[in-house]
Amino acid sequence: MDDRAGLAGVYRGDAALEALLKEAGSPYDAAGVRALVAGVLAAPAGADPRAWLELVAPRMTPALAAELVALRAEFERRAAPVEPAPGETAARVSALRAELARHGVHGFLIPRADEHQGEYVPARARRLTWLTGFTGSAGLAVVLPEKAAIFVDGRYTLQAEAEVDGAVFERRHLVDEPPTAWIAASLKPGQILGYDPWLHTVNEVERLRAAAEQAGGSLKPLDGNPLDAIWRDQPPPPLGPVVPHALRFAGESAEAKRRTVAEGLARERVDAAVLTAPDSIAWLLNIRGGDVPHSPLPLSFALVAGDGTVDLFIDRRKLTPAVFPHLGNGVRVREPAEFGPALDDLGAAHRRVQADPGSAAAWIFERLQSAGADIRRGADPCVLPKASKNAVELEGTRAAHRRDGAALARFFAWLAREAPKGTLREIAASDRLEAFRRQGEHFRDLSFDTISGAGSNGAIVHYRASPKTEKTLEPGTLYLVDSGAQYLDGTTDVTRTVAIGAPSAEMRDRFTRVLKGHIALATCRFPKGTTGSQLDTLARHALWQVGLDFDHGTGHGVGSYLNVHEGPHRISKVPNAQPLLPGMIVSDEPGYYKTGAYGIRIENLVVVAPAPLADAEREVLGFETLTLAPIDRALVERSLLSPEEIAWLDAYHARVRREIGPLVDAETKAWLETATAPLGT
Amino acid sequence: MDDRAGLAGVYRGDAALEALLKEAGSPYDAAGVRALVAGVLAAPAGADPRAWLELVAPRMTPALAAELVALRAEFERRAAPVEPAPGETAARVSALRAELARHGVHGFLIPRADEHQGEYVPARARRLTWLTGFTGSAGLAVVLPEKAAIFVDGRYTLQAEAEVDGAVFERRHLVDEPPTAWIAASLKPGQILGYDPWLHTVNEVERLRAAAEQAGGSLKPLDGNPLDAIWRDQPPPPLGPVVPHALRFAGESAEAKRRTVAEGLARERVDAAVLTAPDSIAWLLNIRGGDVPHSPLPLSFALVAGDGTVDLFIDRRKLTPAVFPHLGNGVRVREPAEFGPALDDLGAAHRRVQADPGSAAAWIFERLQSAGADIRRGADPCVLPKASKNAVELEGTRAAHRRDGAALARFFAWLAREAPKGTLREIAASDRLEAFRRQGEHFRDLSFDTISGAGSNGAIVHYRASPKTEKTLEPGTLYLVDSGAQYLDGTTDVTRTVAIGAPSAEMRDRFTRVLKGHIALATCRFPKGTTGSQLDTLARHALWQVGLDFDHGTGHGVGSYLNVHEGPHRISKVPNAQPLLPGMIVSDEPGYYKTGAYGIRIENLVVVAPAPLADAEREVLGFETLTLAPIDRALVERSLLSPEEIAWLDAYHARVRREIGPLVDAETKAWLETATAPLGT
Repeated sequence: MDDRAGLAGVYRGDAALEALLKEAGSPYDAAGVRALVAGVLAAPAGADPRAWLELVAPRMTPALAAELVALRAEFERRAAPVEPAPGETAARVSALRAELARHGVHGFLIPRADEHQGEYVPARARRLTWLTGFTGSAGLAVVLPEKAAIFVDGRYTLQAEAEVDGAVFERRHLVDEPPTAWIAASLKPGQILGYDPWLHTVNEVERLRAAAEQAGGSLKPLDGNPLDAIWRDQPPPPLGPVVPHALRFAGESAEAKRRTVAEGLARERVDAAVLTAPDSIAWLLNIRGGDVPHSPLPLSFALVAGDGTVDLFIDRRKLTPAVFPHLGNGVRVREPAEFGPALDDLGAAHRRVQADPGSAAAWIFERLQSAGADIRRGADPCVLPKASKNAVELEGTRAAHRRDGAALARFFAWLAREAPKGTLREIAASDRLEAFRRQGEHFRDLSFDTISGAGSNGAIVHYRASPKTEKTLEPGTLYLVDSGAQYLDGTTDVTRTVAIGAPSAEMRDRFTRVLKGHIALATCRFPKGTTGSQLDTLARHALWQVGLDFDHGTGHGVGSYLNVHEGPHRISKVPNAQPLLPGMIVSDEPGYYKTGAYGIRIENLVVVAPAPLADAEREVLGFETLTLAPIDRALVERSLLSPEEIAWLDAYHARVRREIGPLVDAETKAWLETATAPLGT
Repeated sequence: MDDRAGLAGVYRGDAALEALLKEAGSPYDAAGVRALVAGVLAAPAGADPRAWLELVAPRMTPALAAELVALRAEFERRAAPVEPAPGETAARVSALRAELARHGVHGFLIPRADEHQGEYVPARARRLTWLTGFTGSAGLAVVLPEKAAIFVDGRYTLQAEAEVDGAVFERRHLVDEPPTAWIAASLKPGQILGYDPWLHTVNEVERLRAAAEQAGGSLKPLDGNPLDAIWRDQPPPPLGPVVPHALRFAGESAEAKRRTVAEGLARERVDAAVLTAPDSIAWLLNIRGGDVPHSPLPLSFALVAGDGTVDLFIDRRKLTPAVFPHLGNGVRVREPAEFGPALDDLGAAHRRVQADPGSAAAWIFERLQSAGADIRRGADPCVLPKASKNAVELEGTRAAHRRDGAALARFFAWLAREAPKGTLREIAASDRLEAFRRQGEHFRDLSFDTISGAGSNGAIVHYRASPKTEKTLEPGTLYLVDSGAQYLDGTTDVTRTVAIGAPSAEMRDRFTRVLKGHIALATCRFPKGTTGSQLDTLARHALWQVGLDFDHGTGHGVGSYLNVHEGPHRISKVPNAQPLLPGMIVSDEPGYYKTGAYGIRIENLVVVAPAPLADAEREVLGFETLTLAPIDRALVERSLLSPEEIAWLDAYHARVRREIGPLVDAETKAWLETATAPLGT
């Protein structure tokens, strides 16, 4: 039953609800339930839209469930859109300026970030969208008394032009015309630029402060976000149900993880570490939640003490009953409001407290500082062990990738039959792919919004199809689909580019160069200590030789039923100091994009593994490929490949056929046989 | 006439000298000449050991010249060695400790650096050698009341064991056991560690201060280096003659360079920039000197003002007469002692003054700060334009490389005849190479001490042959020679590895993998904006695939008749943010070293150049190879090379034959024909 589908009954009123609550032994009254529902609706619906019912009462009755579903449906009907209506932007900015005057500041920074600096943010944190209309995943607005600007990066330039009212906001390039330069040029001497210290890292604040001071102005942290004061319909903090993550998926008990992290802190003579990244907390405590789209994150904060115990600051209402025994004695569940006072206590006791300057909010450093703590700036201690997957997680991800590969094979086999009809459109295609994936065991969600780009839409790196923009998959074009899923046993992320009809010679040349880059990275061996930055060029070399390149990173870390983008490692032109370590999952995704024409990307997930060699003088590592899906042979220009590259492709296809073949229907299997045939002679 | 060769006459006394000085119109009396000679002897002899005579009198008489040469010879006979005699180290350290007590500090840092943070230092700055005996080019000693340690990197571990008295100094690894950790563990609470602020950068001081404070102690800058107070025979500052660097070599007038640099400072609203790097000053003013070995550097400091004028703080005694009109009105020649007061004046006027925190001494920042200057930390403004050679410099370096290539061809042809006799030793070989080079037009000096390593000595990356260590070039071994020269029109640096007799299959395999790396780098094209760090892996990939690697950078920048190692670009595993720009010269020198057995390195200099391609979508750059010397075909395992790699080697050899053939004798030419023949089928 899907309460989003209009199947809910009519809500019968609070009195009726309270009677049912009492009968079910719920601790809530109607007002409590209304607050709970608002929080539930501030989180995504998730794989099971009824999962939240468990939060209301330990023994749910069918009547109560029906009533709750009806109440939720009523809330949903009344929900206001976040984006400003056409023409409404100016009024919102005016209201913000009036509110700023009450705070005694002249300007304000509105980043896209939430309090956890995560990639996905809950509805409550969509302040940038509410103020400007911009819905992209990265950006910053600056509002000054007489002017305002929004800064977005190259992938969002067109989108910002379409979404943001240019009469109110100057639209600027985040990298080429950085906010710091604009602030330095636009702030007037003596003016104060306010910021919400929960929404910026200390590093950011330092850069912004320098810019404000260069202009003769100053930067000031505000108590309470002034935008929250004027956003009347702002959703509350999300209440996605939190559940245990089973040991058979996690591979290591939370107790063991806490002990290991604590030992690391003790070695550095740290008394406590502040955790602000929800995926670190989820990893450490083996819990998963549903507060933001596509990542099973329970938003919360935590303190890990040197003895391995944890203070978890989280709204108890979102913990399902099973979580409490799962957390055990070593974890103290505390209200979010107690987080600040807990930092004060550490300061008063002059404790040495570690926080991550790259991810923790400036607020935390300011609070610790004024409380008198001995602050140690250090990396979140969960990041590295989380990135290095254990044997159980690796077995899980291999299983998840087989399941995902079966769904992909069914999709591409279907696509091969469907596309030639000439009517298939981008959204219908990605819906079909999602439907195949949903049938897989342990499926929970997509791991990100599918990129389904036909023809020139494939050239937009972060494209998201909408009814307005989607195209038909037409003969002579390429179709690029970048997608992934969250399974309980692993997170997937895969991109394939397929020819619709006959591809041009140029398309085949470009595709083959991208493939050469993909293979060079997939097959390379490297000494222990090598970073992803050092390997990046291998994926670009074949394109560079003819004057081509692609403007995105080559690979990102991937979590284990966690964030599809995780650190600390990365394969990129940008220097990254983290050596690749065994167990780290990373994507291998070179591409090529011809604006207005077509896009190509070939992405597999790979995992770093020891590569023992007979005469090696160094400890050597290499990659094991996880993703199992055919690479379109119609796009391969054989003459550009070396014998070794051809052997790699044939062996990969043989493995796909061997591992995926047994998992699919006969029709798909027949397609798979052809799609994975050797390139031959 | 070489006054080092015992050919000088007997000095006839000061009275005779003064008469001759007067006759020649010299401004000096005998005491002045004695001071001058001491300074001259504190500099290397240089290409022309009589060049300094010009400094004494504008019209030199043969009689005065003979007397001066005799005086110099007398000085030389009395010169004391810098290194402590066996057993003398303890006494020197005791004397230092007593001197430290007079300064009120408990410990002291003795780096290898001079006031200019250069790679080569003058005799006066060899404090680390004087105290410890260590003669390597990088290291740091720390003396505390009850213990002392010397820190050297991996290439110098064995050398430090041989040279440094282990009873006085603990010998530590500079990287694995850094001085900061040792200080943090060894300094006692309340103890003060002194340092000479002229010999450390601010970045270094910050790290060292943190270490001292971690131990509960403190770091304190000292006025005057306490070691100088106890080093009785310490040489004075060097007085290598300074000469103009002709426009036909420099390609751009000093006036034009000063104007360009000033415009850059004006754009950044900087009133003046402090120059402390002697090669920056030499480049900017088109002058060359002779204060340190192998690099034609006049040690000095300078201030560039926003109007393009320069204050040059330099001992006037070392300027040859031609330098004054060459410098012109825009350059004020001032005494070194006026440098500090000039910084004070800038501070008093609240000027915005730029200095480079990566290369300028901490002393400069401390002085500017206390004088009240508005300090801007920024890169030395000469570094980037100096690195990007102009067309005249590039034509010069191509000519120098042809001349150098001819010397190399003669040497290798000679080696091919000589080595089979089985008696040739490392020093005789490198002496012969130097002799061939000295015959080249515009030759001034070697650009560094030649590395001439036979057999297992070739595996020592920074090997320097001595009568004690040198080996005979024996059949079945490899001989590695890394050498270069300073010509007026360019600086060279080349490494070749040749088989003596028949090489083993393993040697051929390793050599060919190194060659593959060399070719991958030499042939690669890359988009504008790419850094050397991004290309480094191309040079290692073929070795990595079988578990091998090399432990040094792949490429360093090279000056134009300046430092053989210059920044800001570099090809290395270590991240470097400087994109490669057209005109930048860089070495391409992958290697492989088998300890105790053999070493392989193939080094050419290459220059970054535009690489226009028909269908390029990016601005593409590539490399033009400058070095012209055969690569030993006997070491090439053809089956490991791709057709493209074979084509590159054959084309390179054809070019060497074409360009070098006309410059050498018939015997060498015959050898060259064979050495550069195509690999064939």
